[in-house]
Amino acid sequence: MYPVITISREFGSGGHSIGEKVAKELGIPFYDGEIVTKVAEECGYAKEVIEDQGEYSSSASKWLDISAASAVYFQSPQDTIFIAQKKVILDCAAKGPCVIVGRCADYILRKEDVKSLNVFIHSDYTHRKERVLERYGDIKDVNIEKRLAKKDKQRKTYYKYYTDKNWGDYRNYDLSLDSGTLGEDGCVKLICEVYQSMN
Amino acid sequence: MYPVITISREFGSGGHSIGEKVAKELGIPFYDGEIVTKVAEECGYAKEVIEDQGEYSSSASKWLDISAASAVYFQSPQDTIFIAQKKVILDCAAKGPCVIVGRCADYILRKEDVKSLNVFIHSDYTHRKERVLERYGDIKDVNIEKRLAKKDKQRKTYYKYYTDKNWGDYRNYDLSLDSGTLGEDGCVKLICEVYQSMN
Repeated sequence: MYPVITISREFGSGGHSIGEKVAKELGIPFYDGEIVTKVAEECGYAKEVIEDQGEYSSSASKWLDISAASAVYFQSPQDTIFIAQKKVILDCAAKGPCVIVGRCADYILRKEDVKSLNVFIHSDYTHRKERVLERYGDIKDVNIEKRLAKKDKQRKTYYKYYTDKNWGDYRNYDLSLDSGTLGEDGCVKLICEVYQSMN
Repeated sequence: MYPVITISREFGSGGHSIGEKVAKELGIPFYDGEIVTKVAEECGYAKEVIEDQGEYSSSASKWLDISAASAVYFQSPQDTIFIAQKKVILDCAAKGPCVIVGRCADYILRKEDVKSLNVFIHSDYTHRKERVLERYGDIKDVNIEKRLAKKDKQRKTYYKYYTDKNWGDYRNYDLSLDSGTLGEDGCVKLICEVYQSMN
């Protein structure tokens, strides 16, 4: 029984969109942006800060101003966000079957013995660049490949920091799918099928 | 169009058996032991040597005796086997759709621009131990977990040496499946489906 599906993904691989379609297909809630709103309510930070810091490691210097102001506390703002996020993820999972994207959800649920089907979505730079250009237009002044690599690195560092595991390591996932070769809809079909065969 | 399916796998994860079932289901040839026989014909080494050296890195000392005897050649016996194996794999793939297990086949085919559906099969120690005990009986004098780790390490080292890539890294595979949670038959079903939807 896998009540919850977690989706981790390389930046630009279409993981968010795949998760959304899976949830729609299965008729279960989809949590991504909603988690940000709930975390904002929980810990008081602005949504933009949570969006930025709830999955991505930032350089220490970025937090320096805020941290200096709150130096009396042992807990960094990013830690505060992680703890609030963890609570929100566990609350979502407790409500019943759902799809949760990113935010170390696979690790958080496993640690609390909540059974989940953990999926990792990836694809090569060619496919991801194509996808980003399709969605955001021809951004000529940005080195897209560099941006993709940076975002992945931040997610990787964030995951490592909070889970002590390696983001993308096959041991963390039941399914790792290449959305570039299998196609977005191909991935949706496979995930739904596994979910249905196991429930 | 994916004429060839390659299956890489953690030791004890059931990858061989999954590959065999996939080939049977799709009615295409299955190459694993047969490659060993063909490589033996190709390079003259005994089958047992090829079985041992065609996927696993050995310590340098193990080769010392043979290497000393053939020190006039620059090519190590393991290199000779790899080259023969590469030829056999490309020959198999050239004949038409098939399933090839292990032996860096995913890398070899990609380098030669032969399109293949690359699958990685893994599962945790608990499932793999269970499987090994089921197949080989209760081997009380062997630390199975240690043996599994050693075999994986040898495959990893071998793969790294000949491909300069990391064995198990999601970037090398279209599908990475946990046979422990998805089940052997579940994996077979998913692989066949992807193959059929793409051909």
